[in-house]
Amino acid sequence: MDDRKLTSEESIIQGYLAPLAAGHAGALGLKDDCAVVAPSAGCEFVLKTDAIAESVHFFSDDRPADIGWKALAVNVSDLAAKGARPVGYLMSLSFPAAPTRQWMADFAAGLGEAQSAFGMHLLGGDTDRRPGPISITPTVIGEVETGRAVRRTTARAGDVAYVSGTIGDARLGLMLRQRPELAVRWGLAPHDAEVLTARFLRPAPRLALVAALRSSARAAMDVSDGLAKDLDRMCRASAVAATIDAVRLPLSPAFRIVRERDPDAASAALFAGDDYEILAAVPPDAAGAFEAAAVSSGLLVTAVGRFREHVRDEAAVVLRDENGSEAPLAPIGWDHF
Amino acid sequence: MDDRKLTSEESIIQGYLAPLAAGHAGALGLKDDCAVVAPSAGCEFVLKTDAIAESVHFFSDDRPADIGWKALAVNVSDLAAKGARPVGYLMSLSFPAAPTRQWMADFAAGLGEAQSAFGMHLLGGDTDRRPGPISITPTVIGEVETGRAVRRTTARAGDVAYVSGTIGDARLGLMLRQRPELAVRWGLAPHDAEVLTARFLRPAPRLALVAALRSSARAAMDVSDGLAKDLDRMCRASAVAATIDAVRLPLSPAFRIVRERDPDAASAALFAGDDYEILAAVPPDAAGAFEAAAVSSGLLVTAVGRFREHVRDEAAVVLRDENGSEAPLAPIGWDHF
Repeated sequence: MDDRKLTSEESIIQGYLAPLAAGHAGALGLKDDCAVVAPSAGCEFVLKTDAIAESVHFFSDDRPADIGWKALAVNVSDLAAKGARPVGYLMSLSFPAAPTRQWMADFAAGLGEAQSAFGMHLLGGDTDRRPGPISITPTVIGEVETGRAVRRTTARAGDVAYVSGTIGDARLGLMLRQRPELAVRWGLAPHDAEVLTARFLRPAPRLALVAALRSSARAAMDVSDGLAKDLDRMCRASAVAATIDAVRLPLSPAFRIVRERDPDAASAALFAGDDYEILAAVPPDAAGAFEAAAVSSGLLVTAVGRFREHVRDEAAVVLRDENGSEAPLAPIGWDHF
Repeated sequence: MDDRKLTSEESIIQGYLAPLAAGHAGALGLKDDCAVVAPSAGCEFVLKTDAIAESVHFFSDDRPADIGWKALAVNVSDLAAKGARPVGYLMSLSFPAAPTRQWMADFAAGLGEAQSAFGMHLLGGDTDRRPGPISITPTVIGEVETGRAVRRTTARAGDVAYVSGTIGDARLGLMLRQRPELAVRWGLAPHDAEVLTARFLRPAPRLALVAALRSSARAAMDVSDGLAKDLDRMCRASAVAATIDAVRLPLSPAFRIVRERDPDAASAALFAGDDYEILAAVPPDAAGAFEAAAVSSGLLVTAVGRFREHVRDEAAVVLRDENGSEAPLAPIGWDHF
């Protein structure tokens, strides 16, 4: 455990960050002020920035490797939803106090795992010291064939609403991270508790779905603030409405176990956010191809409902229960403010 | 004065930020999760991110318009040094408390002035609330003809060291911002005091020099942390040394007035940083063309010294005084850590 402090930006860059940039010539070895990059022939860039901060998006005692992974993963999740392949990222780091060598080594290791898994490299950034929480602000760069980025604003009435993976797990994972004793109360096997916690700590951007989204989806976005809220956003951006079937919402085995024992916790978790799944609007005649492509990529996708015409003054999103009763689904979920 | 609070990210984005994105189709009206952009034909992108934070890079009672201007300007300064034209930017904003409508309107106005002056548009970003100082983290995108970005690492022995504009003013401006009464002690006319303060509050990226840098400079970087420190960095990155003539350092009339009255203040300010000038290495046979191009663009450039072979174990940067005596110039200046 090397708890010596890193007291210069240069020692952080050259000791821990430059190795993350070694695989991309455009990073200029982090020895210049800027990065130089161009999309592949016939492609354009897709850009996104989303910050994560200590005590807001992660805990002070989270493993630094998990923090590094998460910082990149939550941004790459957006690239995946746009049908883009990751290329690289810049990263602005701010520390209230000089980090230790051990912290920085672990953090860089987590970033390294993430960038290897996602197929991208560090291209540049800045590091400074200022009061407040540790903050990590990546700007990620992906690429997509020109004109083929999948938008949020283009869902149409009649499209099938698909969700990848399962929802609600990450919030249960957060509850377990805060109160590990809940695993016993919820009757979870250690493995199930680990799976849920990992969904909070190590979100997995659905890059395997990129090709299927590009070929079959009319619109898509990532589900980061909860399905209710993000579906509401897609509906408003596309000027449509949607009806979702509660019984079709994709739930993991572990989530179902918790729901049996503690329905209130499950209910609070379901639309709470941090899922990093993908919500897609797929035309009905492309649904078969979309599901087939998802299956062949190893990812579960579930048709959870339909987009429809929006009726003025009515809720954008309606949830239909197992009896067929419909009720407006409020855009609850994570709010940054 | 509208001091109602802005309590949702959506109201900030659609009320104040979306208008800044209106001029670039790739921003998708800030209604999507990502921006979509490609460099012009034959060009590549130059990318940079540098955060500014309250109480570190600006004061809590600075005008929000100045803060917005500065956030963009300090990043665009790097693009200019690389010979790149600004295209757009993403921006991550973090507030410890909801900003007022007035603050946000003024801040957006400053950003708007800056992006108009620099020729770029807002393309995306995120806004959240977290403890700590107000932080603004732009990631700027510029473009340059493929392969023509001007590097920091390519200065050669024999090249002339040029500096644009004048140095040291911004730090005197910072001192005046903190202690306005210094203007009297320094014998400054109100106009001179304003000029110095403006150099701290509203740095002007040297975009007028972009064409001259691309056609004549072998290496360049912006002078943000002080000439001594940044020249040392360029020397190390290029594996050369440099000798600078003290009498040639470009000083403004206001700086000279202060130096007469308060040599210690002037001496402390000279290499303290925040200049946002450009340091360039120009081959001797291109020096005439470089100066001519700078003059025709309306910018002062001054040959302050020469790059030379680096002798092992000797200082990278040497300062020669008016008597011809040489002494190592320590890489003093602004340190982020």
